Amino acid sequence: MLTETSRILKEAGFVGPELLVLEDVARTNIRSMVAKARQAGVVLRPHFKTHQNAAVGRWFAEAGVSSITVSSYTMARYFADHGWDDITIALLLNPLELPRIRSLADTLRGRGGRLGITIDSLEAAGYLGAETGLAVDVWLKVDAGYGRSGLDWRYAEQARAVLQALPPGCSPTGLLTHAGHSYHVQAGPALDRIWEETRDRLRDLAVVLDPSGSLRISVGDTPCCRYREDLAGVDEIRPGNFVFFDLMQWSRGVCTPQEMAAAVVCPVIGLYPEDGRIVLHGGAVHLSREGLPVSEGRIVFGFAGVLEAGAGRMLSRGPVTRAPLVSLSQEHGTLKLAPSSWPDLTRNLALGDLILVWPVHSCLACDLADRFRTLEGVILEK
Amino acid sequence: MLTETSRILKEAGFVGPELLVLEDVARTNIRSMVAKARQAGVVLRPHFKTHQNAAVGRWFAEAGVSSITVSSYTMARYFADHGWDDITIALLLNPLELPRIRSLADTLRGRGGRLGITIDSLEAAGYLGAETGLAVDVWLKVDAGYGRSGLDWRYAEQARAVLQALPPGCSPTGLLTHAGHSYHVQAGPALDRIWEETRDRLRDLAVVLDPSGSLRISVGDTPCCRYREDLAGVDEIRPGNFVFFDLMQWSRGVCTPQEMAAAVVCPVIGLYPEDGRIVLHGGAVHLSREGLPVSEGRIVFGFAGVLEAGAGRMLSRGPVTRAPLVSLSQEHGTLKLAPSSWPDLTRNLALGDLILVWPVHSCLACDLADRFRTLEGVILEK
Repeated sequence: MLTETSRILKEAGFVGPELLVLEDVARTNIRSMVAKARQAGVVLRPHFKTHQNAAVGRWFAEAGVSSITVSSYTMARYFADHGWDDITIALLLNPLELPRIRSLADTLRGRGGRLGITIDSLEAAGYLGAETGLAVDVWLKVDAGYGRSGLDWRYAEQARAVLQALPPGCSPTGLLTHAGHSYHVQAGPALDRIWEETRDRLRDLAVVLDPSGSLRISVGDTPCCRYREDLAGVDEIRPGNFVFFDLMQWSRGVCTPQEMAAAVVCPVIGLYPEDGRIVLHGGAVHLSREGLPVSEGRIVFGFAGVLEAGAGRMLSRGPVTRAPLVSLSQEHGTLKLAPSSWPDLTRNLALGDLILVWPVHSCLACDLADRFRTLEGVILEK
Repeated sequence: MLTETSRILKEAGFVGPELLVLEDVARTNIRSMVAKARQAGVVLRPHFKTHQNAAVGRWFAEAGVSSITVSSYTMARYFADHGWDDITIALLLNPLELPRIRSLADTLRGRGGRLGITIDSLEAAGYLGAETGLAVDVWLKVDAGYGRSGLDWRYAEQARAVLQALPPGCSPTGLLTHAGHSYHVQAGPALDRIWEETRDRLRDLAVVLDPSGSLRISVGDTPCCRYREDLAGVDEIRPGNFVFFDLMQWSRGVCTPQEMAAAVVCPVIGLYPEDGRIVLHGGAVHLSREGLPVSEGRIVFGFAGVLEAGAGRMLSRGPVTRAPLVSLSQEHGTLKLAPSSWPDLTRNLALGDLILVWPVHSCLACDLADRFRTLEGVILEK
């Protein structure tokens, strides 16, 4: 079972460790979200923090996406250099970066585009005023319940003061939030509740701040945007992880195994049948140390997966195997198989065979990879 | 307190997030280990997996180090390209990489150097025989109690068979182990026990395999090599983390805060005095998701630290502050301060100020950084 997948990976040119992207699956994920946003009449401004890769970015463009979200100035500059000209930096402003941000905003405006930034305080608004010639879209970042960053949604007077303090050139664009607590619940009514609560809190605040309705509402998290049937009531969604999904989303019921589109390909460097261990060259520097809680307080760092060949070059992914990555150090990962699984899963398995490992958190695994490789052997350079 | 450190970091050119290396501290750490190895009469073959940086590598060379350890072929090639010619790849062989390894071994031999590799099975020895013209030092990797990889130290007959199966050109060099369980105990008698047990198991096996004493013994882990007074009885030590240390080593009593030499500099992007929160641009892609267990089952991802200016350009680091990084997402980190600490630690703190965050695991934080910056503002390119 594992050897057949290894054969396919070797044919694609993998030597390992290297990040595999299933292009067909990722493109389908993108098209689905584009269609969903279009049907709901909301702007899709996908967060490019997951792939951080210009080649994958083109897949979004080919599906009709023209506006994007990034985390940092550095990533905004990278995607601007690769042709994107409508970019929002979702992370709160670092005032030390204002000269760079002004320069980038000028570049994008010169191409008919725009740069959006986020702030959540009067102090930040003051820095904007001190940066001569700055012209950006300014989003007020609102904490609608997650508790990480942003101005508390109940602080309407402070919100009003921030918007009123914006200097000329810095237009108040709307309210932006990230409901990151959606990552901590199972797909189902709990996600509906988070979506509705977040939407309602932002809408209430927007109406108080500007009854004319000029303030836009931007929300973004893969669990809600994927699970939720009805996206009405917001202007913009900013999911990111959905392009590749991962074991965390799968474990929450947000995606199926067949929708996972990024994996780490790891060579077998140690085989210890006596205690069901397969040691991989594949560790925290490839998969990250993100752990997935499983039964009885145990944590796993990935699952071995398999590929199944279909017609032509099309491949669909079969089930996640019963081989969890139970321990992880800097460059090593250890798969542990139950004795009953060993004969079936490892038949003919040899040193140097390649194991496909689904990561717990694809954003971090992608961040760790300098480049990706598709099953067709195409290199996707960052 | 934090603002004074921020001022020093801004003067060094930090904008953040970026990895800071305290050059004086790291050089002292290197010189101490060189002196200790010399006094014990053992070869120091430091593991370059921690810094992975050619510029830092030169500090080792300047301290008299000429032989090194790396994890992977990729890193061996990198350091060979930067002038190192006596390199051991500590990770078990991936047979798919044998053509590359042969080529690298030829290069090093042409410069009067040598490449070492590790195997732990007859199967691997067979691959060596199939690679025409391969000439490398071969270490037998032994599992002396850690349980991650290597041939069980009790399997003398299997060990003998592997060594006897080595083809011409592949000289049996010795027994190599990594006692990684030393990272899970406190500095003290437990480390002595691990050291002595590991050493004795390897020596016993070496004598059984070759009573003439030709097999060398190589061990390597920072906790034992740092803590242990008496390093006699082995031929070679391969610690790595000691160049920078980190919170994990500090929490085990292996190093002092004054010996920690790598930190992540993170700008303040959110200030929420009402609940003692400081939000940083500094997340899992800068610090890694490695967590440090603290009291009551809680995990922290770093501690804010401070710098204290001394004479001239010398700076010594003061104590770790009482500001733990209590949560971490991809790009965000949240410091949480007790109400009593807030006024003292945050006096005059503003958005865009820079916080020095000690990482839990410096190897992973360094791996995530494309380059380092010293307090003197020198960029250390990878």
